Amino acid sequence: MSEIRQDQPTKRWVIMATERAKRPHDLAAKQPTAEKQQEYSADCPFCPGNESMTPPEVLAYREEGGPANSPGWQVRVIPNAFPALRPEGEVVVSQPHWFTSVTGVGAHEVIVESPIHNASPATMSVEHVGLVLQAAAQRFAALQQDKRLRYVALFRNNGLPAGSSLTHPHTQTIATPIAPTVVRLEIEAARRHYDDRIQCVYCETIDKELDAGQRIVLETDAFVVFEPFASRWPFETWVVPKQHAAVLIPQDISEVEPLAYVLQSTLKALYDGLSNPAYNLVLHEAPLRDSCEDYYHWHIEILPRLATAAGFELGTGIWINSVLPEDSAEYLREFVSA
Amino acid sequence: MSEIRQDQPTKRWVIMATERAKRPHDLAAKQPTAEKQQEYSADCPFCPGNESMTPPEVLAYREEGGPANSPGWQVRVIPNAFPALRPEGEVVVSQPHWFTSVTGVGAHEVIVESPIHNASPATMSVEHVGLVLQAAAQRFAALQQDKRLRYVALFRNNGLPAGSSLTHPHTQTIATPIAPTVVRLEIEAARRHYDDRIQCVYCETIDKELDAGQRIVLETDAFVVFEPFASRWPFETWVVPKQHAAVLIPQDISEVEPLAYVLQSTLKALYDGLSNPAYNLVLHEAPLRDSCEDYYHWHIEILPRLATAAGFELGTGIWINSVLPEDSAEYLREFVSA
Repeated sequence: MSEIRQDQPTKRWVIMATERAKRPHDLAAKQPTAEKQQEYSADCPFCPGNESMTPPEVLAYREEGGPANSPGWQVRVIPNAFPALRPEGEVVVSQPHWFTSVTGVGAHEVIVESPIHNASPATMSVEHVGLVLQAAAQRFAALQQDKRLRYVALFRNNGLPAGSSLTHPHTQTIATPIAPTVVRLEIEAARRHYDDRIQCVYCETIDKELDAGQRIVLETDAFVVFEPFASRWPFETWVVPKQHAAVLIPQDISEVEPLAYVLQSTLKALYDGLSNPAYNLVLHEAPLRDSCEDYYHWHIEILPRLATAAGFELGTGIWINSVLPEDSAEYLREFVSA
Repeated sequence: MSEIRQDQPTKRWVIMATERAKRPHDLAAKQPTAEKQQEYSADCPFCPGNESMTPPEVLAYREEGGPANSPGWQVRVIPNAFPALRPEGEVVVSQPHWFTSVTGVGAHEVIVESPIHNASPATMSVEHVGLVLQAAAQRFAALQQDKRLRYVALFRNNGLPAGSSLTHPHTQTIATPIAPTVVRLEIEAARRHYDDRIQCVYCETIDKELDAGQRIVLETDAFVVFEPFASRWPFETWVVPKQHAAVLIPQDISEVEPLAYVLQSTLKALYDGLSNPAYNLVLHEAPLRDSCEDYYHWHIEILPRLATAAGFELGTGIWINSVLPEDSAEYLREFVSA
């Protein structure tokens, strides 16, 4: 008999369809791994030498110095050439009583993670992943000054099934003048939990998961990486800090190192274990100017796209998962470097 | 500048990224249309003569009569061979205070819509679509008697990008012992709206959409078909009854005819206009034994899978849509038969 599990933070349901179960290695994805890709692509707007193919950079790290928008960078941040939102203009609300809309003010940036076309956080050094996080933190610090904005979404799409058309390794930032629905729902649920138990639901979750043990992928001094009890997708993986905080704002590179380490290790385990799977990686954190310090807890969700959400999932919000998180965690632990 | 639109019933946000705009015919999908498929497939478990390849039928319509599980049927309902949930057993809740789960009791059925392998609701007669709806209604009436169940989800996945691996035309039913998150959220929002305005938010929506006119695809005496103001996907299409009701339970074939007509016309317009696009079609209605009569309003959502939800959408619940619903409605109107 299958089992219907509930996610404690959000109360959403997942059917663990064990009768449809797949073995982890049957899910190994068909993405080309680094060794099957070229190190440089003359057509790629993110490759060095092609800086003029993108809008002018807003940030770049160059060890040896050198002019902006020229080669020599290790990490480079640029506005998206086809932005969903733009920084110009005022936030104007139209027709607040029906057909409500807000002007598309915000930002849409791309963090090019490496000059090497076939690099990946899974194969980079921890130090280089730290540089990427440092760039993200620096842009976050700049964007949060903008009083028009309410959220900065940070996400990474890997592979075509995850909605990424460019292979050159990159992360994106979209800053919006509105608070996102998913985070609002998480915060409301977390507040109810806090008012009920005077405890953060995410703090309790990592305690319970550490006690249970069987869904843990990796534990460090600062982080717990695990496959949630009610994982929606095969190999859904959460990275949750042990220290309670609603927002991630690392101040300098020394503070991002522990996160760089767990992210690199986790993405490497997925890359090695599932042959570079398509995935979406998303930071969940409190909206700007809405600190919800006591009850919300920032975390990262990695959602491998090894199954397709169909009508049932989209229409009901109930997910069907064919891989038990206990099994995927056990599988991934073998690929986590000691 | 792009525009961020809010869906009035649910309050979710959609970025209308007009700078990334695509023209409707650029989206025409790559699904083979009927004339490129075979009428019969010897390997297909849903083709006539292969009845023994499926679990025994729970319902079938045979104009000429004849034994169960033999050819001669027009519409046939069978349990899914790899069910997410099964009818046997009791609903038992485990560990209600953390790692909460419920036994996987329910039903998972397939309505085979036609004996013809390459048929489609888009190319069937309205009468035959009515027969399919009649079968769905009959199974719904049977399943709702089961006191263990809380919801009957009815959905149709068309094409591989929509999660369907079988081409033979079929619709599915999954009955669950829990109420679905998406419907719960819609109902909560609809109740707030009703308490605020003493009006159903869906009734108001169709009034406002009819007044605006530009997003209407089709209007009949009984239904309004439109592209919602805050469409998440290109060509998202809603079918909403004019008569307020929380649940669709057509009692006999004469009552399903008006719905069969608008569904067939709408699916044919999508099929002709976008070359048989992949889509998910989902019925949204009140849970069982939770009537919410005043404020909830059943409807059907058709979600073409012409774009991939990526990290931003999954992590924030904010969607980015590259096609304005005003444009897709105008385009579809040309394909709706008079």
